[in-house]
Amino acid sequence: MSIQTCKVAVFGLGTVGCGVLQIFEKNADILQERTGAQFEVIGVSARTKNKERPVDINAYPWFDDPLKMVSLEGVDVLIEVVGGSSGIAKDVIEAALSKGIAVVTANKALMALHGRELARIAEDNGTIIRFEAAVAGGIPIIQALKTGFAANKVRSIYGILNGTCNYILTNMRETGRAFETVLKEAQDLGYAEADPTFDVDGIDAAHKIALLAALSFGRNVPFEALSVRGIRALQAEDIQFASEFGYKIKLLGIAKDYGAQHYVCVEPCLVPVGTEIAAVEDVFNAVQIDGDFVGAAMLTGRGAGAGPTASAVVSDLIAHVKKGDDPSTRTFNVSSEEMTDIALRAPESIEGRFYMRINVLDEPGVLADVAAILRDHGVSVETLVQKGRNPSQPVCVMIVTHSIDAGAVQKSAEEMEALSFVQGAPCILRIEDNIS
Amino acid sequence: MSIQTCKVAVFGLGTVGCGVLQIFEKNADILQERTGAQFEVIGVSARTKNKERPVDINAYPWFDDPLKMVSLEGVDVLIEVVGGSSGIAKDVIEAALSKGIAVVTANKALMALHGRELARIAEDNGTIIRFEAAVAGGIPIIQALKTGFAANKVRSIYGILNGTCNYILTNMRETGRAFETVLKEAQDLGYAEADPTFDVDGIDAAHKIALLAALSFGRNVPFEALSVRGIRALQAEDIQFASEFGYKIKLLGIAKDYGAQHYVCVEPCLVPVGTEIAAVEDVFNAVQIDGDFVGAAMLTGRGAGAGPTASAVVSDLIAHVKKGDDPSTRTFNVSSEEMTDIALRAPESIEGRFYMRINVLDEPGVLADVAAILRDHGVSVETLVQKGRNPSQPVCVMIVTHSIDAGAVQKSAEEMEALSFVQGAPCILRIEDNIS
Repeated sequence: MSIQTCKVAVFGLGTVGCGVLQIFEKNADILQERTGAQFEVIGVSARTKNKERPVDINAYPWFDDPLKMVSLEGVDVLIEVVGGSSGIAKDVIEAALSKGIAVVTANKALMALHGRELARIAEDNGTIIRFEAAVAGGIPIIQALKTGFAANKVRSIYGILNGTCNYILTNMRETGRAFETVLKEAQDLGYAEADPTFDVDGIDAAHKIALLAALSFGRNVPFEALSVRGIRALQAEDIQFASEFGYKIKLLGIAKDYGAQHYVCVEPCLVPVGTEIAAVEDVFNAVQIDGDFVGAAMLTGRGAGAGPTASAVVSDLIAHVKKGDDPSTRTFNVSSEEMTDIALRAPESIEGRFYMRINVLDEPGVLADVAAILRDHGVSVETLVQKGRNPSQPVCVMIVTHSIDAGAVQKSAEEMEALSFVQGAPCILRIEDNIS
Repeated sequence: MSIQTCKVAVFGLGTVGCGVLQIFEKNADILQERTGAQFEVIGVSARTKNKERPVDINAYPWFDDPLKMVSLEGVDVLIEVVGGSSGIAKDVIEAALSKGIAVVTANKALMALHGRELARIAEDNGTIIRFEAAVAGGIPIIQALKTGFAANKVRSIYGILNGTCNYILTNMRETGRAFETVLKEAQDLGYAEADPTFDVDGIDAAHKIALLAALSFGRNVPFEALSVRGIRALQAEDIQFASEFGYKIKLLGIAKDYGAQHYVCVEPCLVPVGTEIAAVEDVFNAVQIDGDFVGAAMLTGRGAGAGPTASAVVSDLIAHVKKGDDPSTRTFNVSSEEMTDIALRAPESIEGRFYMRINVLDEPGVLADVAAILRDHGVSVETLVQKGRNPSQPVCVMIVTHSIDAGAVQKSAEEMEALSFVQGAPCILRIEDNIS
């Protein structure tokens, strides 16, 4: 077979961009053996040309202007690893797609917010945008949903999709320390950004579950409509209580099929200790899928970092040269026209058991008032524990409910928050007993 | 986009074949939405026409002779789910490939023994044979090795590849019962065959690790040269000892890159309890890969059964209609010509810690003789435990060694077996401390 040459332009030379160049340099023989293709980097561009990098970028033609780079004759694939949900990344991708150039991106924010729009531009120009690296780093979950599991109606997806949060939660459990302390340490170690908002408030995980839901259900997922909660409100006491009752707390991206409606959210949940997903610790990511024929299956691996993310970027290049997906040119498994907006089920209507922690001043009558509010909303208590006995110091009241819809628990919490002896908003966590 | 029709002939109407027909019936809309294709079954064939089946096969044209079926005008894909490493399955596949018909098979024995030969026939006729369903049922590991992880040099693969063995080992640990008792129960429950040889002696797992190694290393793996051991020799005491020392016993398929040589084997191993692979229990399968860029990643799911296996078969059909892999028509990632025989490293040379159990009559001098043999072969003892104190009844001496090559342990065991007070062959199990 003749050797095919795939001409690649790389926009972004941070850890991931440099990782891609390292794979080209180190594994060129493997890539050629496995695909019959050679990858030629015909241009690189980034915000800053001169800085310390793990590869020598002088080996590649430099472009100050990435738009000029995608105007080069013969570009087969643009790799976009600059990031950002708008601005130059979006401009360059749109320019490439408009010229019929295939795009490989690691940009979850851009794809979650503008995926359908970009898919349409790709289709109109007979090309495709691939985004394996945008979700769960080195785990080939996008490909699995597009082919490996594609014979199945997806009933549910649970994902541990943010390594920073999983690291913080693992560390909080192992050391018993507070969220702020562990976050500070994670920042010092480089596991968390100086501004950790995207990670700890669940936004990054939400970008990813939105993409998984769009692929699984073949519908557009309006990002701003999703219910998203992070891990900032968690206290050491929540983790400890969970441990004592046989659970771990994990920040989960959840996408479930409820027939005419779908539930898509990010929220910290209690998962039973013996389950496979509970065993996923530290910076590792995991995606568990339940399909109507395959049953439960799970993929785990590193969700971030130069190597895993670059591995995913190059897997998309391999799919490109193998022509997989090409005839259909469907970025999200279905055509962008078929991607009508998903009908999202209201979070309040989702039933289950819940954990609730209320910080209260230890005064007489507290438990009576709390119990009365729960009763008024039809919330039945399975377990109640009060921890600490320092008069006039806040103590924790922890409750596990019987199965009830989330709305009733939420309303109870709002009423409790108004009570004089309650400090701050009660913390409510769903208990995911049906996970495997 | 116009709807494409993919004409399919199904050979084999057992649980998997019927599962495929059920997917076509139940998920036709999903398949069309995701691929732009309709699957039309233009022929079915099986050993027996009339028997109780979960689908009505009268809806499809029946062929007594499967060779006649693949001679039909316009067959796009032959699905072979009859099984058997030779005979009619091989004949029909060869006939189909010779006509340029793509083949999808779940037949691990056939692919492990004759894969390169079939790949060559496929290439010569411009077609391909896909076998996602042959390894680990519903887990899309073949596809992952061909695309998702294909940017990586594979350093190692560990697989739990036989659900029957994993069920037996899980049950032995949970109940403390003997192998024979649990096997009998598994047979009664339908989890094990009446003749369990293929499963419990590791042959089925060996077929699968041979295929994974061939794909990962791009080399032919001569099946008969592999080192293969099953779980028949394991006693309840081995499982109990492992538990006490923080290990579980798993039957692993192992494929490792040692540079110029590769090690490929199936053997029961001790794996640390906290690892991800140790958490894979009952009939579940798992494949853990370590790649030079992606690092450690793992896929788990059901390894057998109608639904998962049929899901994998149909995923190959989806790959077919999406034209993925087609231009390269490479069944094993590389061309069959490049598939020279792998250089297998001798099992004796593989270093590590070992567990050894010797059944001995409790006589004076036993430990001295055992210790002397170990010393003579340079085997250094980390832990030694003797269990039971019934004079003239066999007791177990369990040893954990420091790191040493397997050959030294094996030679020690052979010498011990010749001693008058040793009953049967000592049981040696590798301790896989480096697994994640």
